[in-house]
Amino acid sequence: MSFQNPVFIPGPTNIPESLRKACDMPTIDHRSPLFGTILHPARKAVQAILKSTSAEVFIFPSTGTGGWETAITNTLSEGDTVLVARNGMFSHRWIDMCERHGLELIIVDVAWGQGIPADRFEEILTGDTAHRIKAVLATHNETATGVVSDIGAIRHAMDAAGHPAMLMVDGVSSIASMDFRFDAWGVDVAVTGSQKGFMLPPGLAIVGFSEKAMDATKTAGLHRTFFDVHDMMKGYANSAYPYTPAVGLMNGLNEACRMLMDEGLETVFARHHRIAEGVRRAVWAWGLELCAESPDVYSDTISAVRTPNGFNATDIVTHAASTYGVAFGVGLGDVAGKVFRIGHLGSLTEVMTLSGIATAEMCMVDLGLDIKLGSGVAAAQEYYRYGSEIEQKVAAQ
Amino acid sequence: MSFQNPVFIPGPTNIPESLRKACDMPTIDHRSPLFGTILHPARKAVQAILKSTSAEVFIFPSTGTGGWETAITNTLSEGDTVLVARNGMFSHRWIDMCERHGLELIIVDVAWGQGIPADRFEEILTGDTAHRIKAVLATHNETATGVVSDIGAIRHAMDAAGHPAMLMVDGVSSIASMDFRFDAWGVDVAVTGSQKGFMLPPGLAIVGFSEKAMDATKTAGLHRTFFDVHDMMKGYANSAYPYTPAVGLMNGLNEACRMLMDEGLETVFARHHRIAEGVRRAVWAWGLELCAESPDVYSDTISAVRTPNGFNATDIVTHAASTYGVAFGVGLGDVAGKVFRIGHLGSLTEVMTLSGIATAEMCMVDLGLDIKLGSGVAAAQEYYRYGSEIEQKVAAQ
Amino acid sequence: MSFQNPVFIPGPTNIPESLRKACDMPTIDHRSPLFGTILHPARKAVQAILKSTSAEVFIFPSTGTGGWETAITNTLSEGDTVLVARNGMFSHRWIDMCERHGLELIIVDVAWGQGIPADRFEEILTGDTAHRIKAVLATHNETATGVVSDIGAIRHAMDAAGHPAMLMVDGVSSIASMDFRFDAWGVDVAVTGSQKGFMLPPGLAIVGFSEKAMDATKTAGLHRTFFDVHDMMKGYANSAYPYTPAVGLMNGLNEACRMLMDEGLETVFARHHRIAEGVRRAVWAWGLELCAESPDVYSDTISAVRTPNGFNATDIVTHAASTYGVAFGVGLGDVAGKVFRIGHLGSLTEVMTLSGIATAEMCMVDLGLDIKLGSGVAAAQEYYRYGSEIEQKVAAQ
Amino acid sequence: MSFQNPVFIPGPTNIPESLRKACDMPTIDHRSPLFGTILHPARKAVQAILKSTSAEVFIFPSTGTGGWETAITNTLSEGDTVLVARNGMFSHRWIDMCERHGLELIIVDVAWGQGIPADRFEEILTGDTAHRIKAVLATHNETATGVVSDIGAIRHAMDAAGHPAMLMVDGVSSIASMDFRFDAWGVDVAVTGSQKGFMLPPGLAIVGFSEKAMDATKTAGLHRTFFDVHDMMKGYANSAYPYTPAVGLMNGLNEACRMLMDEGLETVFARHHRIAEGVRRAVWAWGLELCAESPDVYSDTISAVRTPNGFNATDIVTHAASTYGVAFGVGLGDVAGKVFRIGHLGSLTEVMTLSGIATAEMCMVDLGLDIKLGSGVAAAQEYYRYGSEIEQKVAAQ
Repeated sequence: MSFQNPVFIPGPTNIPESLRKACDMPTIDHRSPLFGTILHPARKAVQAILKSTSAEVFIFPSTGTGGWETAITNTLSEGDTVLVARNGMFSHRWIDMCERHGLELIIVDVAWGQGIPADRFEEILTGDTAHRIKAVLATHNETATGVVSDIGAIRHAMDAAGHPAMLMVDGVSSIASMDFRFDAWGVDVAVTGSQKGFMLPPGLAIVGFSEKAMDATKTAGLHRTFFDVHDMMKGYANSAYPYTPAVGLMNGLNEACRMLMDEGLETVFARHHRIAEGVRRAVWAWGLELCAESPDVYSDTISAVRTPNGFNATDIVTHAASTYGVAFGVGLGDVAGKVFRIGHLGSLTEVMTLSGIATAEMCMVDLGLDIKLGSGVAAAQEYYRYGSEIEQKVAAQ
Repeated sequence: MSFQNPVFIPGPTNIPESLRKACDMPTIDHRSPLFGTILHPARKAVQAILKSTSAEVFIFPSTGTGGWETAITNTLSEGDTVLVARNGMFSHRWIDMCERHGLELIIVDVAWGQGIPADRFEEILTGDTAHRIKAVLATHNETATGVVSDIGAIRHAMDAAGHPAMLMVDGVSSIASMDFRFDAWGVDVAVTGSQKGFMLPPGLAIVGFSEKAMDATKTAGLHRTFFDVHDMMKGYANSAYPYTPAVGLMNGLNEACRMLMDEGLETVFARHHRIAEGVRRAVWAWGLELCAESPDVYSDTISAVRTPNGFNATDIVTHAASTYGVAFGVGLGDVAGKVFRIGHLGSLTEVMTLSGIATAEMCMVDLGLDIKLGSGVAAAQEYYRYGSEIEQKVAAQ
Repeated sequence: MSFQNPVFIPGPTNIPESLRKACDMPTIDHRSPLFGTILHPARKAVQAILKSTSAEVFIFPSTGTGGWETAITNTLSEGDTVLVARNGMFSHRWIDMCERHGLELIIVDVAWGQGIPADRFEEILTGDTAHRIKAVLATHNETATGVVSDIGAIRHAMDAAGHPAMLMVDGVSSIASMDFRFDAWGVDVAVTGSQKGFMLPPGLAIVGFSEKAMDATKTAGLHRTFFDVHDMMKGYANSAYPYTPAVGLMNGLNEACRMLMDEGLETVFARHHRIAEGVRRAVWAWGLELCAESPDVYSDTISAVRTPNGFNATDIVTHAASTYGVAFGVGLGDVAGKVFRIGHLGSLTEVMTLSGIATAEMCMVDLGLDIKLGSGVAAAQEYYRYGSEIEQKVAAQ
Repeated sequence: MSFQNPVFIPGPTNIPESLRKACDMPTIDHRSPLFGTILHPARKAVQAILKSTSAEVFIFPSTGTGGWETAITNTLSEGDTVLVARNGMFSHRWIDMCERHGLELIIVDVAWGQGIPADRFEEILTGDTAHRIKAVLATHNETATGVVSDIGAIRHAMDAAGHPAMLMVDGVSSIASMDFRFDAWGVDVAVTGSQKGFMLPPGLAIVGFSEKAMDATKTAGLHRTFFDVHDMMKGYANSAYPYTPAVGLMNGLNEACRMLMDEGLETVFARHHRIAEGVRRAVWAWGLELCAESPDVYSDTISAVRTPNGFNATDIVTHAASTYGVAFGVGLGDVAGKVFRIGHLGSLTEVMTLSGIATAEMCMVDLGLDIKLGSGVAAAQEYYRYGSEIEQKVAAQ
């Protein structure tokens, strides 16, 4: 195994040195007060990153998928109805989970490449005068298509419909990389993992519950034990866990939050935007298109790049891995073979990104696509380089 | 945080240097073939440690508790009956989980300090002519009391009763430290975690399923997604996971299995026995008793030590942590305050163990117990020291 | 290689977790300003640990031996005379180095187990009216015998004699573990390494020069390049080195100094004294004697333990390593085979120390010495345990 | 401190993950047999990398500069004459060291950018019929100019002159990256460090001595102790050191040699050539020139790039560090301000290299040079990309 090149998968991300070290921790007694000095700050720090002052934060030794399960099993009962859009593989999988747990689903299918249609949600919610719908599920950033949806607009739709359903948001590939406003958007459950914006190894499901969601847990009938938030609350009150916590990862989570806060959340988001915009300019310089259909849904954490018809986009990923030792993401589900994905979230610099762009170029040329070597790199360099902004402004005058 | 002294909690254990390094891994693409070179050997290696040639091994980013949930939700349906003994906090918790998931329970309560009564199980199973009982749940090693139960005897009881129920075993604090025979004992589901015998950080539920258990998954009605073994099987067939695997821990698991196999399983078990016997001799030299009531149930991974009536055993644990920076385990549930626990599993030497014994002595003297400093240490030294066996044999002639 | 047990060699010491991590650093450009943020604080921090406000601190990628060579080659010329005592292997080696570099030596031989005779030095210096003696060399703590000498008394002797020679002190196994007063004692050159009181891996020679020593460098005729302090000074002025510095170790040095200062130097010294005193009580409980002949020369970092006549003390070291995986130090030179050494400096707890004492006991019993198992441990426990001081005071009333 | 981007200084190099871990080792007893299992294989492995079957290899806790001092102080006496060429900063520094140690020098100055003139050496040596010249010093790869010299040709010149002088070669930035033939070239002393071709942190001087050099040590009069090879030989015979060895780095050295040998030395050299050639093509695509004057002296480990007259090349290095977080090397001595240096030795991939080239481009454009963004990258990509060789051959037909 060689680990020299950065990875460009849409998570897990490249792990910063300081987080590697924070996670790599000797054993401590997780039932001693020492553990509380890791647990409590971690919960508080995540709350701040969610832009919430009151969300109950739960940290499970699990993954984002476990976070989804935490969200629904603690708040819903068999037969409950949820409203959800399907616009990519990850929204699809959450839907599948709901079905397996005996929930009723109202699914709004939209093209993979589009965002969640808030207006359509408003119609449906307005029509649901009996308030049969208990929860609205939204995937903030579709990792499969590089599409970000407007969660504020969904909240607006729910409010406009005067609907009391809970709003549950999958923020796995957005939280800590793109703006996420738990309180302002009236989110009831937010779900993420350790291995994306938090730049940590996988192994934590990180979940925030609003007061309304906590109320719902009292009557929720779905079975749960491992993911039970009451057991967690009881544990937390004693600076403990109902079982063995992933102490090292939680120590890393504290350090990750400290890094994010030291940089400043808005600066972190701006950095992701800047990196992403450079990638997009490279894509356009290649003469290719994003899977995301319009600028308002461009994701700042993942770019899914459409390749010409008749070309198998997955070959780029395979070739990059075997020939250049660089990892990109393949297309999934409806867009399998049609797109390849460049992950650009978490700990990444412009310089690292340029090496990913350069590699993608070499792969595409190797595989016979009509791409000019250096073209995407130059477009990104022009955007990334120091002073380019100022010069552009001057030139525009 | 200082990390100088070894820990003596009953897991997570002290982590060997090489496992620290194996777990601390840069990000790789978990959807690339590289991941298969970690996944497949890990599953194979765990199978060997379970002493099985056919068990399907599942590795979840979770904990032993998640392993319990995997066991029951994949094989049982609401209303199914399970037979189980309660002889400590961990058997109690698995029982609680079964209840929460809507299972019917036949609970055999025995004193905390005794093993699972195979004869009582045989009676009950023989009486269950309708084969209402779908599963027998057994906690191989009760971490709360330091009591090991005879799983072979339970299999024998089941066979004697001609009962087709599945045998599910919690081997969390036994597997990889004490003899465990998946195939020979006819175990259907075995559950463990990364942080005990495997000496790794917490974060993995490690579960083995027999063919019979795999058959049961086809009709099992309990809801599950995160812990679904079918999704796992489908993923494994493609060298992948249904979600993001804990790659670093799995890399560590491979290395842990290699260490265990290089040492030899029987040698590992003998080492645990030797370490444990030294601790027991120290306990007796102090004039104290084990919670485990008889030699046949003495655990080689954990010793729960009864303190005199009127003395709060938990004070030893608190004092050891705050004064000497050493972690022991407190008594739980029925034996809270009555015992303190010395974990002696995983990566531990006689020399390290002596420092734990010495610390316990200082604590007990500090807290006013009538213990002679050095007495337990001397008893353990006499047992541990080189040549003592030979000399004892000669003296006995 | 297993790394489970602590080491009890007289350095390198057990390395604290945080120092392991501070040293394990990715490559940075050692010619960039970033390096200055490591270099300057490290020099300043070492100065404080030397208890100096003005010493020029030099940090070489080398060892204590390189520090000796730095001391003499930068300040002396061929044929210069130095006064030095020989009371152990390390003072002997420095003498040997002086001879190889063409210096004239006045050697005061004393028994290995005694300190440097300040009164004898005073006589010699008083007699040297021509001030032929350019430097007095003193080994503060003889690592070979566990003997600490009184540097303040030597300074007093020099002053009483009105002698202008420089005072050069080998503080390799004392600095940062026992009180060392560069300014108050009028030390001109102090020499140490990274791997003792600083608790780091070996690889740094750390040297302090007084103004007088810096003046002497202008006329010193001995050849030097690698160890030239002028090249260093020139480099430091540009936040750089004359060659490639050991950046990781220097980063570790900063962290080590921070740890020491956070604990407080006097607390660090008191901790070493406490640990050492427990070891000494164990030695006496065994009925053995220290190599150090009287309490005023007992070292708080190393105890050399005399074994009975006819017994080869080195066997203990060999046996401890091969049978118990524990490292002690052998006797060197005049006391080879007569003593074994227990290092108790740097990062060590009472609990760890007890395991070393317990191991030594087992070894001695294994090898046929008439030692009672647990006796030394009990004596140390009695001293180490919480409250023993208070109880002793009460009992004494 | 952020460590995300690769470094492009001419050493220390980027450190591979496995070497980071091999160096980061807990303390072992360096006087125990365990140390021999690190020491002996390391010496043997270095010998193989030197392409020697008999060189005595010495490993000092020091740097390449210490290696130079080892070379001369162990083999020469005050007043001895050495022949040496000066064609860059590092040959200059070795000359300076010789002067400080009282050696007589015959210096052949050539332009910085040219190699060592073997024909001129032959003339001088032929003229030295009295064999006053005791050693010929040659810098194999001038790190300051990116110029490699032909050591085989120098040996040829010495043989043609029938001259018995020793041949001492500074291989600091060549050994383990470019072909080096200790035996075939009749090298008597080879000097390198840990932080270049061996890809380790700095801290080791690695030196090989021929039988002739070992003979010379018997009469060499220069003072030495720390760098004395006799003390080392005596230590090595007992699997030990005359002082505390840098155990972790030596453990890393073993692992580094294993990596190099697993890859195959010729493959390692070919990889360096390939990486270097891509950099050179980028330089030419920018319309710039190398400092190295002709293809026969192009270094495969460092490229020094000349910038246009009137432009301060050092600004590129400063700007790259402060704006993009990327480290290049500045010009030194005669070429200060005239060149900047791209290090491309050790652990580096084409992909990483492209990010360095892209960064240099951005810097040069930022600073007003007339460089086309993407031009150098495209030239390197065309050379690096898979299949380009085949296509070029086909096109050439």
